[in-house]
Amino acid sequence: MSASRPYLTLDSRYVWQSRWYSLRQDHLRAADGSEITYTVVEKPGAVWIVPVTADGQMVLIRQYRHPVEAWCLEVPAGNVEPGHDELSMAARELREEVGGTAGRWAKAAEFFTMNGIGNEIAQVYLAQDVTLGAPQREPTEYIDVELLPVAEALRLARAGAIKDGPSALAILLCEPLLGEYGVGPNA
Amino acid sequence: MSASRPYLTLDSRYVWQSRWYSLRQDHLRAADGSEITYTVVEKPGAVWIVPVTADGQMVLIRQYRHPVEAWCLEVPAGNVEPGHDELSMAARELREEVGGTAGRWAKAAEFFTMNGIGNEIAQVYLAQDVTLGAPQREPTEYIDVELLPVAEALRLARAGAIKDGPSALAILLCEPLLGEYGVGPNA
Repeated sequence: MSASRPYLTLDSRYVWQSRWYSLRQDHLRAADGSEITYTVVEKPGAVWIVPVTADGQMVLIRQYRHPVEAWCLEVPAGNVEPGHDELSMAARELREEVGGTAGRWAKAAEFFTMNGIGNEIAQVYLAQDVTLGAPQREPTEYIDVELLPVAEALRLARAGAIKDGPSALAILLCEPLLGEYGVGPNA
Repeated sequence: MSASRPYLTLDSRYVWQSRWYSLRQDHLRAADGSEITYTVVEKPGAVWIVPVTADGQMVLIRQYRHPVEAWCLEVPAGNVEPGHDELSMAARELREEVGGTAGRWAKAAEFFTMNGIGNEIAQVYLAQDVTLGAPQREPTEYIDVELLPVAEALRLARAGAIKDGPSALAILLCEPLLGEYGVGPNA
């Protein structure tokens, strides 16, 4: 069964649209012949950036997130805008959110953030030899920068202490690339 | 700054509602005095279940996900319905999706799945001594069961090969509880 697509899309319409994401309502015929409605959060892909300074500090941010009404420990992240490539958007987010510039970039992984309801793909980039300057935030972004040794950031992510799931996973997926900081299976 | 809430909600209205999730549009006044609109995917919490059999096989599922039009390797998961506790919903999802019954349950972690746009909280449960029987799926759920040794499932999650982010993170957050299967820091 898993070679085929079990749904045929009969028609689609947008029930809500915005600059950030839209809701697309699909009318589907399932393989058993039944018809169902499936509403998809249609969203551009996004980049999560795991920034590390030359002396092995991970650059985390503590950001207020209105949807959960909490300050969350995260890594910088942002949408990939149409017509831009992932890496240039990652560099822009790093610059805007923490004033960072990286000497080295590496694509670490990609994953779906919400495949039951939406199509967002997270692209994870490791940014190394990061230097920090003045951030260029939106006036309504509330962000504090927190530097942590790489090993401590990995420990927090593994322990479930980084409550933003995609940030925690992004950090853990970079672990194989972090050997030079004295962490990981070859440390 | 991070002790306070930088937004005051002036008013809220639903722009779309369904049984699974709704869109709530909030009109906010930010700390700098400006007013913004923030649209939140309002969703019940959900449980992700990491099931392991008595002989150390992790019970994964390969499920068709319409939003990303792909078959994804995942762990069983589902929404927590109003009036139900997390653990009974976790037991029900395990039974429905893979026909599983667990001898032991442990809460492993919790995280936000999409804190930039929505309020979903993922609750991660480790289910041990799982036995498998006949699943009780919805007719339009398309799921194959795949058993993998615990160490191999962890390896896939760490390597970024489990493309459903919350499933990959759920598996990694259970690692400290999986020592009896010969994995983890004390193996």
